[in-house]
Amino acid sequence: MAKEKKAVNAITDMEVDFAQWYTDVCRKAELVEYASVKGFTILRPYGYAIWENIQSIMDAEFKKTGHENVAMPVLIPESLLKKEGELVNGFAPEVAWVTHGGNEKLEERLAFRPTSETMFCDHWSNSLQTYRQLPMLYNQWCSVIRWEKTTRPFLRSREFWWQEGHTIHETAEEAQAETMQQLQCYADFFEKVLAIPVLPGRKTEKEKFAGAEATYTVECMMKDHKALQGATSHYFGDKFSRAYDVTFTGRDNKIQYPFQTSWGSTTRMIGAVIMTHGDNNGLVLPPKIAPIQAMVIPVAQHKEGVIDAAGELLMRLKEMGIRARMDASDQSMGWKAAEYEMKGVPLRVEIGPKDMEKGQCCICRRDNGEKIFVPLNELETVVPQLLDSVHEGLYNRAKQNLENNTRVCMTLDEVKEFMETQGGFAKTMWCGELDCELEMKEKAGVSSRCMPLEQETVSDVCVCCGKPAKHMIYWGVAY
Amino acid sequence: MAKEKKAVNAITDMEVDFAQWYTDVCRKAELVEYASVKGFTILRPYGYAIWENIQSIMDAEFKKTGHENVAMPVLIPESLLKKEGELVNGFAPEVAWVTHGGNEKLEERLAFRPTSETMFCDHWSNSLQTYRQLPMLYNQWCSVIRWEKTTRPFLRSREFWWQEGHTIHETAEEAQAETMQQLQCYADFFEKVLAIPVLPGRKTEKEKFAGAEATYTVECMMKDHKALQGATSHYFGDKFSRAYDVTFTGRDNKIQYPFQTSWGSTTRMIGAVIMTHGDNNGLVLPPKIAPIQAMVIPVAQHKEGVIDAAGELLMRLKEMGIRARMDASDQSMGWKAAEYEMKGVPLRVEIGPKDMEKGQCCICRRDNGEKIFVPLNELETVVPQLLDSVHEGLYNRAKQNLENNTRVCMTLDEVKEFMETQGGFAKTMWCGELDCELEMKEKAGVSSRCMPLEQETVSDVCVCCGKPAKHMIYWGVAY
Repeated sequence: MAKEKKAVNAITDMEVDFAQWYTDVCRKAELVEYASVKGFTILRPYGYAIWENIQSIMDAEFKKTGHENVAMPVLIPESLLKKEGELVNGFAPEVAWVTHGGNEKLEERLAFRPTSETMFCDHWSNSLQTYRQLPMLYNQWCSVIRWEKTTRPFLRSREFWWQEGHTIHETAEEAQAETMQQLQCYADFFEKVLAIPVLPGRKTEKEKFAGAEATYTVECMMKDHKALQGATSHYFGDKFSRAYDVTFTGRDNKIQYPFQTSWGSTTRMIGAVIMTHGDNNGLVLPPKIAPIQAMVIPVAQHKEGVIDAAGELLMRLKEMGIRARMDASDQSMGWKAAEYEMKGVPLRVEIGPKDMEKGQCCICRRDNGEKIFVPLNELETVVPQLLDSVHEGLYNRAKQNLENNTRVCMTLDEVKEFMETQGGFAKTMWCGELDCELEMKEKAGVSSRCMPLEQETVSDVCVCCGKPAKHMIYWGVAY
Repeated sequence: MAKEKKAVNAITDMEVDFAQWYTDVCRKAELVEYASVKGFTILRPYGYAIWENIQSIMDAEFKKTGHENVAMPVLIPESLLKKEGELVNGFAPEVAWVTHGGNEKLEERLAFRPTSETMFCDHWSNSLQTYRQLPMLYNQWCSVIRWEKTTRPFLRSREFWWQEGHTIHETAEEAQAETMQQLQCYADFFEKVLAIPVLPGRKTEKEKFAGAEATYTVECMMKDHKALQGATSHYFGDKFSRAYDVTFTGRDNKIQYPFQTSWGSTTRMIGAVIMTHGDNNGLVLPPKIAPIQAMVIPVAQHKEGVIDAAGELLMRLKEMGIRARMDASDQSMGWKAAEYEMKGVPLRVEIGPKDMEKGQCCICRRDNGEKIFVPLNELETVVPQLLDSVHEGLYNRAKQNLENNTRVCMTLDEVKEFMETQGGFAKTMWCGELDCELEMKEKAGVSSRCMPLEQETVSDVCVCCGKPAKHMIYWGVAY
């Protein structure tokens, strides 16, 4: 059976070539396919179903805190995009331009949105009048285009799907509180839904979003010890308000500029899930986003009563609100086991003549391969517990990976040695100067990941220049 | 109070200028706003919330019949678009072209999708191998661009939001059955969710979708007696399969071409809702898609216990699964009544000191203005009944409008006279010839709407040429 599984799966071992393993999983689990358009991908039904689960849970969280969804135009006039200098400089090299509509050349070319701060500001400049309308808490789910040179499924693609939240507030304090609230929302989502531990923190000036006053991030560590920026939350002050002439009449009856935030997360999260939980048998999905949480498989299904018993199990699982399916096809047991391992289905529920005699079924966990014989009358109690347990198991294993591969370093040489021998997050002190950040990149090959919200003093001096330190900071090699 | 309402609403009466009334409702109910980009609109929170309710109900229906969502690239290479001649000829004048990515001119220009048959075919030409994979039942929710000359909110906009279903099947019969199943799905959605009666039928050769073998439609009638095409379902035969080389190995081990369908519905449905149910006080929403189904308003809210009693009502409504809100702002009762009438909220639930004494609340129906005093202990029984009753009331009124303004006509002159004096759907026989269709347009100003599935014989000869008739058909003036 081991041989048969290998033949079905036929993916590269992650220890042999992590990048190839990743691409193999993306395709063999039928998540994405390359499109004919260079650098673009297709989200296939199984991949899109994961994205739908992510959207549905996250959207409900946004709405709990008063956010409303809208749809802004996908095309942005060049002159509008150019009103805020830093933003356009940051994105100009990556913009796709529409120059013709129908058979006519446009008077002004239009950018396919790389991000929508400009459109929201333009809308607010027309619709905002009084402080009574504030805050405006908007979000949109859409796709954006950034003309990347090299692309990889989910991680870097010319078109990707995301949510972008955009809000304006009466005061700077309220906007800053929103920025932090949404950062926490992402941190909770990663940990409680995706089972991925994160380091929430602030980006350096060098790494922050073009045009933002401050950018916050949740950083996570993949199985190959590389870093992945999970989601970001930005505070803009009133910089865009001033550039786009967004004003309101304040409580004091004077014209004022509102304070702004934006925050985003993308289909890249699916890439993070693959590289955090996956193994050499394929995808491993956290139960909360798994399109199929339990796959029922009848054993020796030609025997009398087996299909009925399996169907009964399926019905009971569905009634519990579990996303369950049954595979009663004529494929072999080995093929089915391999197929649903590859697809990362959290639980495989098997029942055959012997189980029926004993009044049980056999549940196999995808996360650790454990097989549990469950008395049929305990199904409703045990299955939800098992799904919780899979989530916890995945989270704890990822947490172990993060902790085992984070090292406190005192010198640049130490960072370099750590990155060369083990790789991971180097936890150091930093003086806050760009020069040191550049030197770290040049000599140790690392970029700053974030200055964590939970600061510690691991030393008094900068890891690079030895001058007095201002921040604790994480360094790593990022996707 | 009537005066105050007028001041708040300030919309044109529909009898004075229906087009202006429509635009006024779109803007005053805060559904859409014009964007800075010519011909593009912004879906504001209230408008988008209606679209979210539409999406959620319709998506669940699609999934019940085995359809899966995917995401295809938004850009289509020109060469790919041009592989099927009829399709590209139909859409070429309306395509927006991306010619530059970042700072570089592209080797081949890319079309912003006007519709995605080509992308789906391209994907299937790579992924389809055997009949075992059939049918493939795909759908996507996205926006598309068609470079229209004149635009109107929801009805005709350069960018609009829609779903496009695309399926392939082993046999022509299966694909035809899918086409009709999805047409019925739309008909049910219009009648049971949007409370809009429809005429399901087939489009003429002249009016069918570019590249389709047959196009089916659900046609509805607006309050101004004009026609609106609600949604369409197309059967393609194997035309696209052949053009895009989509093949599979059949049961007979031979290479075959699959048979294809596509079907779509758009944000235009919101336009249909406005023009079917709206009145001179603004929007009137069918309860199933209303973002707010019941608005609780405390009367004399400074009086002791009123706010608490209203809050209690709100809580009970929410617990029943009703989308309810409360407005305890310091605006006047007149302002609040006018505001929620404008927004089309199906039920206004008022409670004040007198109601509290009597153990009742007062519920005002948006559809007919009726006020019902409801004993508080009957709330859970009465509110769902009232919502059903609002739906039925709206449907029946729209059905009356459709029936009252449909006339059986025997001659072109009769059609002309009907259109000039009353307007609506002219129900006639037709020989099936393009010449007569063109003559009807030229002389009576009408286009064919559909040949309804339920055919009757209202005469033996064509309304135009007098030769033997083949079909019963509806004519009208369309949005």
